[in-house]
Amino acid sequence: MTQTYLCTLPLPEEWFGELRRRLPDVEIHRASVDRPPEPDVLARVDFLHTSEWFPDRADAPALRCIQLDTSGVDHVRSTSLWDTTIPITTLGGIAPVPMAEYAMMAILELAHRMPLIERHRAERSWPSNAERLANLTPVDLPGATVGVVGYGRIGREISRLAGAFGMNVLGVSRSGRAGAGGDKFDTGRSTAGEDRAELFPVSELDEVLRRSDVLVVVVPLTESTRGLIGAGQLDQLRPGSFVVNIARGGIVDEAALLDRLRDGRVGGVALDVFDDEPLPPDSPWWSESGALITPHVAGLAPQYHAQTLDLVVENLTRLAEDRPLVNEVDRVAGY
Amino acid sequence: MTQTYLCTLPLPEEWFGELRRRLPDVEIHRASVDRPPEPDVLARVDFLHTSEWFPDRADAPALRCIQLDTSGVDHVRSTSLWDTTIPITTLGGIAPVPMAEYAMMAILELAHRMPLIERHRAERSWPSNAERLANLTPVDLPGATVGVVGYGRIGREISRLAGAFGMNVLGVSRSGRAGAGGDKFDTGRSTAGEDRAELFPVSELDEVLRRSDVLVVVVPLTESTRGLIGAGQLDQLRPGSFVVNIARGGIVDEAALLDRLRDGRVGGVALDVFDDEPLPPDSPWWSESGALITPHVAGLAPQYHAQTLDLVVENLTRLAEDRPLVNEVDRVAGY
Repeated sequence: MTQTYLCTLPLPEEWFGELRRRLPDVEIHRASVDRPPEPDVLARVDFLHTSEWFPDRADAPALRCIQLDTSGVDHVRSTSLWDTTIPITTLGGIAPVPMAEYAMMAILELAHRMPLIERHRAERSWPSNAERLANLTPVDLPGATVGVVGYGRIGREISRLAGAFGMNVLGVSRSGRAGAGGDKFDTGRSTAGEDRAELFPVSELDEVLRRSDVLVVVVPLTESTRGLIGAGQLDQLRPGSFVVNIARGGIVDEAALLDRLRDGRVGGVALDVFDDEPLPPDSPWWSESGALITPHVAGLAPQYHAQTLDLVVENLTRLAEDRPLVNEVDRVAGY
Repeated sequence: MTQTYLCTLPLPEEWFGELRRRLPDVEIHRASVDRPPEPDVLARVDFLHTSEWFPDRADAPALRCIQLDTSGVDHVRSTSLWDTTIPITTLGGIAPVPMAEYAMMAILELAHRMPLIERHRAERSWPSNAERLANLTPVDLPGATVGVVGYGRIGREISRLAGAFGMNVLGVSRSGRAGAGGDKFDTGRSTAGEDRAELFPVSELDEVLRRSDVLVVVVPLTESTRGLIGAGQLDQLRPGSFVVNIARGGIVDEAALLDRLRDGRVGGVALDVFDDEPLPPDSPWWSESGALITPHVAGLAPQYHAQTLDLVVENLTRLAEDRPLVNEVDRVAGY
């Protein structure tokens, strides 16, 4: 049976050429939000590769795999495809290395007082020796504790890097164990070694918060993680702790976080994700000098093209052979 | 024989109290640039603990140890104390962990396009998906090569961290071997593991440059390292390489570096040290958006007070017992 693949992503011509070379029997179609597919094509599509565009269930009766271009799946929940049994597969496995690098960068920048140093730069002011010693001496990372909320592939890679800097890691997952079910896409690039983290189920989140100098949030956004880190949770962190969110807006209470950053209970914040994206021009975060903010870039992967190609080829092949797909979403867990 | 210790540093009262507690027989005196010691005190001082203030040799005839508050010794070379045989000892060993953290932070920030992301923030502009993919995707660190020029304790710690990120390390030292002679101060905090770096003597610097995607300069400023990284050396780096200087101004040709950053031959720059410090208000570096600049903070150490106390106690004790001092400068090598 011929496979019909539809892609709505703006990938380069070479990418499709390579896909054609590797799977010559697959019929390849392209579309976009502005240029939806012809109805007769959509009716035959069995493999949809997409990010934001989703057809109505009734218009795509042959659909057997929805391959997302994201690691998160929260935006699919409001579509008619969520309440079907069509497998949804994610980009999981591509982002762990760059996301863990980003998290470690954020921890280093906060520990090394970069928000304050940036202010000096903006004013072209060179601090005195006394000022340097008093205000710009870094926080000690060896021996400090980082709580990693969400302990999948990204969390484990963060743990490995934080360990290399001498930090202690407390990992939080639903079950208190690492990893989850199903076949996972492996780029062969994560260098995860021995995992020395102490793991906790989410029911023991409070203990992790009480022991953490740094909190890194990297849990998927689901109905059970929405609002997981509210005012009450932030108040259990050690005074002056750092908070890093590279997961999704909606998990950390932004208003509560801003309050605590401003009054010093939280010592520094790094946010790559926000309740409203794009971040509105009048958002207070743009000019909040104690906060490092970035425009949802932590998941950008250097080998994105090569790795998505490998992933799509793998799942098209598995689909043709009726084998279980890699990175399949568990709709009950919500990720 | 009573030891007479003179300190010109603005250390807190508790620091001196602790020194008194640990070495009750040492006579402790304090001074500063604005409040130099009485001549009769200076005449008895055998242990001088200082950073910028140096007496004339003739006024301090009892001097047997000059304990610096810096890792570098370049600023002592112009004083009358340089041309004596009085041992000079440095702060070496205190900074490797925070300096290596700083170097790794700079590499991560450059690889993750933070200079460009900072510009977006300044304009409150949220990049489109296409812009994110095209311009904000990070450089691949696993498999990239970092050349570390200067392969003492700091260089080795940088190597260890870069290795944790999957980078290859090429180390450059005078001899092509790691480390140097003499007893070294050990804070017990460096977590240096197996060193997988490939080592080169400085005579083979060009080969290292040709193979490097990132150049980290952490060599002491001596007569033989002044101007070590000039236009000719920068031009041997791979196109778009990053340059990080946490050593001293005067080693990297700043004008040549700025030219190459602006025309893209160098892809990003992080400078903690400059030819002129404080950096003059009209320096082009302040507003150079491709450059991360910081005001000579990379060597600030979180445990500075405790560790300098340990170091001073150690060297006062060794001096009393006529044992070799730790961190003694080799005046011929110049560091």
